[in-house]
Amino acid sequence: MTEPGEVPDDGLTVGVDVGGTKIAAGVVDGDGKLIAHTRRETPAQSTEGVLSGITDAVRELAGAHEVHAVGIGAAGFVDAKRSTVMFAPNLAWRDEDLRSKLTAALDLPVVVENDANVVAWSESRFGAGRDHDDLVAITIGTGVGGGIVVGGRLLRGGFGVAAEIGHITMVPYGRRCGCGLQGCWEQYGSGRALVTEAREIARHSPAFAAGLLERAGGEPDAITGEMVTELAQQGDVGALHCFDEIGRWIGLGCAQLAAVLDPSLFVIGGGVSEAGEVLRSRVEATFRGHLTGRGHRPVAEVRLAELGWEAGMVGAADLARTHPDTAVTRGTTS
Amino acid sequence: MTEPGEVPDDGLTVGVDVGGTKIAAGVVDGDGKLIAHTRRETPAQSTEGVLSGITDAVRELAGAHEVHAVGIGAAGFVDAKRSTVMFAPNLAWRDEDLRSKLTAALDLPVVVENDANVVAWSESRFGAGRDHDDLVAITIGTGVGGGIVVGGRLLRGGFGVAAEIGHITMVPYGRRCGCGLQGCWEQYGSGRALVTEAREIARHSPAFAAGLLERAGGEPDAITGEMVTELAQQGDVGALHCFDEIGRWIGLGCAQLAAVLDPSLFVIGGGVSEAGEVLRSRVEATFRGHLTGRGHRPVAEVRLAELGWEAGMVGAADLARTHPDTAVTRGTTS
Amino acid sequence: MTEPGEVPDDGLTVGVDVGGTKIAAGVVDGDGKLIAHTRRETPAQSTEGVLSGITDAVRELAGAHEVHAVGIGAAGFVDAKRSTVMFAPNLAWRDEDLRSKLTAALDLPVVVENDANVVAWSESRFGAGRDHDDLVAITIGTGVGGGIVVGGRLLRGGFGVAAEIGHITMVPYGRRCGCGLQGCWEQYGSGRALVTEAREIARHSPAFAAGLLERAGGEPDAITGEMVTELAQQGDVGALHCFDEIGRWIGLGCAQLAAVLDPSLFVIGGGVSEAGEVLRSRVEATFRGHLTGRGHRPVAEVRLAELGWEAGMVGAADLARTHPDTAVTRGTTS
Amino acid sequence: MTEPGEVPDDGLTVGVDVGGTKIAAGVVDGDGKLIAHTRRETPAQSTEGVLSGITDAVRELAGAHEVHAVGIGAAGFVDAKRSTVMFAPNLAWRDEDLRSKLTAALDLPVVVENDANVVAWSESRFGAGRDHDDLVAITIGTGVGGGIVVGGRLLRGGFGVAAEIGHITMVPYGRRCGCGLQGCWEQYGSGRALVTEAREIARHSPAFAAGLLERAGGEPDAITGEMVTELAQQGDVGALHCFDEIGRWIGLGCAQLAAVLDPSLFVIGGGVSEAGEVLRSRVEATFRGHLTGRGHRPVAEVRLAELGWEAGMVGAADLARTHPDTAVTRGTTS
Repeated sequence: MTEPGEVPDDGLTVGVDVGGTKIAAGVVDGDGKLIAHTRRETPAQSTEGVLSGITDAVRELAGAHEVHAVGIGAAGFVDAKRSTVMFAPNLAWRDEDLRSKLTAALDLPVVVENDANVVAWSESRFGAGRDHDDLVAITIGTGVGGGIVVGGRLLRGGFGVAAEIGHITMVPYGRRCGCGLQGCWEQYGSGRALVTEAREIARHSPAFAAGLLERAGGEPDAITGEMVTELAQQGDVGALHCFDEIGRWIGLGCAQLAAVLDPSLFVIGGGVSEAGEVLRSRVEATFRGHLTGRGHRPVAEVRLAELGWEAGMVGAADLARTHPDTAVTRGTTS
Repeated sequence: MTEPGEVPDDGLTVGVDVGGTKIAAGVVDGDGKLIAHTRRETPAQSTEGVLSGITDAVRELAGAHEVHAVGIGAAGFVDAKRSTVMFAPNLAWRDEDLRSKLTAALDLPVVVENDANVVAWSESRFGAGRDHDDLVAITIGTGVGGGIVVGGRLLRGGFGVAAEIGHITMVPYGRRCGCGLQGCWEQYGSGRALVTEAREIARHSPAFAAGLLERAGGEPDAITGEMVTELAQQGDVGALHCFDEIGRWIGLGCAQLAAVLDPSLFVIGGGVSEAGEVLRSRVEATFRGHLTGRGHRPVAEVRLAELGWEAGMVGAADLARTHPDTAVTRGTTS
Repeated sequence: MTEPGEVPDDGLTVGVDVGGTKIAAGVVDGDGKLIAHTRRETPAQSTEGVLSGITDAVRELAGAHEVHAVGIGAAGFVDAKRSTVMFAPNLAWRDEDLRSKLTAALDLPVVVENDANVVAWSESRFGAGRDHDDLVAITIGTGVGGGIVVGGRLLRGGFGVAAEIGHITMVPYGRRCGCGLQGCWEQYGSGRALVTEAREIARHSPAFAAGLLERAGGEPDAITGEMVTELAQQGDVGALHCFDEIGRWIGLGCAQLAAVLDPSLFVIGGGVSEAGEVLRSRVEATFRGHLTGRGHRPVAEVRLAELGWEAGMVGAADLARTHPDTAVTRGTTS
Repeated sequence: MTEPGEVPDDGLTVGVDVGGTKIAAGVVDGDGKLIAHTRRETPAQSTEGVLSGITDAVRELAGAHEVHAVGIGAAGFVDAKRSTVMFAPNLAWRDEDLRSKLTAALDLPVVVENDANVVAWSESRFGAGRDHDDLVAITIGTGVGGGIVVGGRLLRGGFGVAAEIGHITMVPYGRRCGCGLQGCWEQYGSGRALVTEAREIARHSPAFAAGLLERAGGEPDAITGEMVTELAQQGDVGALHCFDEIGRWIGLGCAQLAAVLDPSLFVIGGGVSEAGEVLRSRVEATFRGHLTGRGHRPVAEVRLAELGWEAGMVGAADLARTHPDTAVTRGTTS
């Protein structure tokens, strides 16, 4: 078995992206290039099922390529040693020592990381942030996730659960969040918020939402995020209003993060970011207008993510290879 | 002149704490012990006057002790190279290259750091956080300042101005802040907020604020922070109400920071923290109740700062000695 | 048919309370005493079904008593002429001219009024507000309804839809409301809010909500408003916390209403008010603390409603009899 | 002395507008026409001085015209009997029985009313609201005042202090208000808010505020409300932004008031309303978008006030003549 730090420069590693419905695994080289990949279904309610899906996929790839280490990205709280998943919202894992089990099963060094952190790492190494050492990558899907890179290293926190940025409070006593708090950012700046806004205006201001309603066959509840994005890109006034709303909230959140972290770059990714410049320009405008100390400090850039579906695999594989804080290369974290 | 990295283990360094009205400079050993110190007045409106006050104080100390490097802590935005003060709210400095000027004048290596960062570093090395690698130190004076330690290193941000935590937005469209934004944390969780609250209840609910009014000779505007603290410690109901208010807001802010940074410790310092457990217990209660993912994650401790007036000197001196990111020991930052 | 204004002092009128699931009709004398009553089921989706239910119930009562006029109370927007239901959330009525249809069917004068207004009128005539000419009656059920009496007369508004007080905005960008707005009062100060709060603390702070969880068999979603009320009255800390929350918001809403209307009395009714003093005392405390101009003005009382299930019938019957603005006695409104 | 109710149809009355710096008194006929008027300085700190200023001015007018009654409009809380000023922010009056003193001094019936109520009455009788029975008149000066007409009568409240609409809370924990509360409407939708916003953008976004800065000689603190209005009417982007801000908040407040009062008309007056359509259109747009039940109810109009500096005199004179609730014509209120 490869010792920590012994992945050769031209060696290969495997990255595994564990989602709520599927597992994607890929062989990645030192330049972040995806050499080969495979998939398995995720039996979400079975701890063992997910584990055997992962080992099965990795073995398939390891049979065809000489791989030196494995990185796993999964939604949830991963402990500071990057070993145990303490809690996963979409899977049955509770305090599951994934690394020990997978290391034993695969006979390869394994590192486990939060999925949004993996994406941030991927963008910082091979994507929109490859020229920046201090960045925040925001993943805007149904909710809002994030990863933070500080001085070229992932910010993991004292307990491993840093960068839960979707749950900073934007509005005291605001909208209820599934996390138990109120007014969390992801209730305002996410794909879910985009669709909710579109359906609300369709219900209560049908003339304003005429384009959206026509596209959805007259049924507010049939409006989807894709429809809003498509119409916004065509200039539809109701759809653009929805992006005004979430873009503003995302920009306000970036201003909060800048006050704490002062990154030189924000990377906007996730499904909602497929709206492209329609979203990015709105985020940037609000961010710039709400930055503390504006006029006396440099202002971070706001860019769209460059990597797509493969970001999870590539980032996880690279964490397994190179990061000085992973157990793969240094033994233990922090 | 000492070369980077050449401060001997048992060598001494000087730390300088530059305030709006005075300069304090001290000789500090490798254990954070203050060996000797001196003071100068700060002629706030004169750039040259402050510089000569610093050089004068350092020369006095360097004449009596063999010192190897100098660290400066000052309120303001310090650039990422820890050399230039871009903006200082209480001094005339604008894009002032302090390090170059002082290095030339003193013939010693110099590093410049934001004053709240210096205090955080001091607490993390020799104070309440000496057993923690991931902490946030919150300085609650008239306003709210902060410093962040991640993995044992100061978080400085891409442009050098991280940890401006007093300006995260707590209330959209909330109270106006001198920084130009609205609803900033320091308008709710600071010493100024404490006094404002006390005066407001004295004006509008005099029966409730009877203790405070008596102490202030019947004059709402004569109430000071010291009076509120003193009465709160004696159990006065109006004074405790004021700490309920600011303690709640400080706790809410800690919960925000935990969502982003996940520190294992918060250190509460600054003048208002002299209220001790009256303040700490309130901060902790609200923090625990507003933490995202509570029940699925370890919870950070909340402690009072241990160092007092000497924290600025000790921290600045230690940054000049040991920090791997300072130019003193490694040449350049980031 | 009785002419407007001809109901004799000792004559009887009928009041009808039209709910989403049942119709209650009663014969009421000039002192607000319920002489006889009957019920019908409400076929909510059938306009004609509800109408024939009303006529059927009134005919039953009119066959046994000499009645002179009929008052109808129904949830929804009633036009300024107190004739047409413009919109009813729980029934199929849309611009339904109830008065014309019922007058024709019953050969009696008819007046139609919003149900919360009817309750307010009832309390102002025969209940907690019988000694006040300027009051606001707040009905706290699943949502929040209200009725306003000004100078001894119902405040109906220019279009008939005044006193939709459940939809004043308490929190900008707050919780989504079914009315299409955000942050409406009824999302914070209602029975639904009470239960939501209880379930949230049960889910996220089980130790704090131990009493509630035990009572609900360990299942957060099995907690009901009745359980919270019962436990609060027994001093359970978690249940009292829930009343702290909604009591505070109700008190804040009362302060808003006082700034606009300056009533001399608030009457708190509806199902949630069965908590009694547990609720009233909390509402009053917050109301007093948030009243503009406190110290320079008299402060309104806060009382619990005195009438129960019969308030709808009694108030509707009395509006049919006495109110100067009803068509029954004066021909036309305003 | 004229008995209550004995002002002849073609008789004259006097209206007095008591401000912080001057007293204006005028003779008004039954059509609201100002026949003659005079002025006195207000010695603000002297109770007797203001009284003698009023009597002096009324005597001058009564010497030249046959007048039958006197109406006084003054800033402050006037009791329900329209006799005593309980509190006046700009004058030394505290529980001052103005009516008794003036009646004795002048030998004429006197009625006292809050100044914003007087203006609302004036607009409802002779101005923008003369075709409406249910209106809210909003006076936007340095702060926000208001008067409410319900069914053709002034809404005075149980204690005489209704319509303190500038102090409904728009933002929980928002900007501090001089009244002791936080987040009051007048901190967001007033002339003071307009100027504050303009100065803030001038300080922190000088490029955006270039027009305003140029007009103010480069000095943010030299910007006045008149400058903002003038530039907004010329299409200046920074000035229009300031009206966007306050217009939005005024519209949100109108939506709150509509939920409670359902007027058929809002009248926007006061110094800031001199901006005309620039302000009105913004208020209306936000009001319409935030009205509960929109789509199911008629929507109130938003108009600019029609009367100017004479509104206070004309309205006070008319209250002295005609209102059924004044002691002049009916003996006692409520």
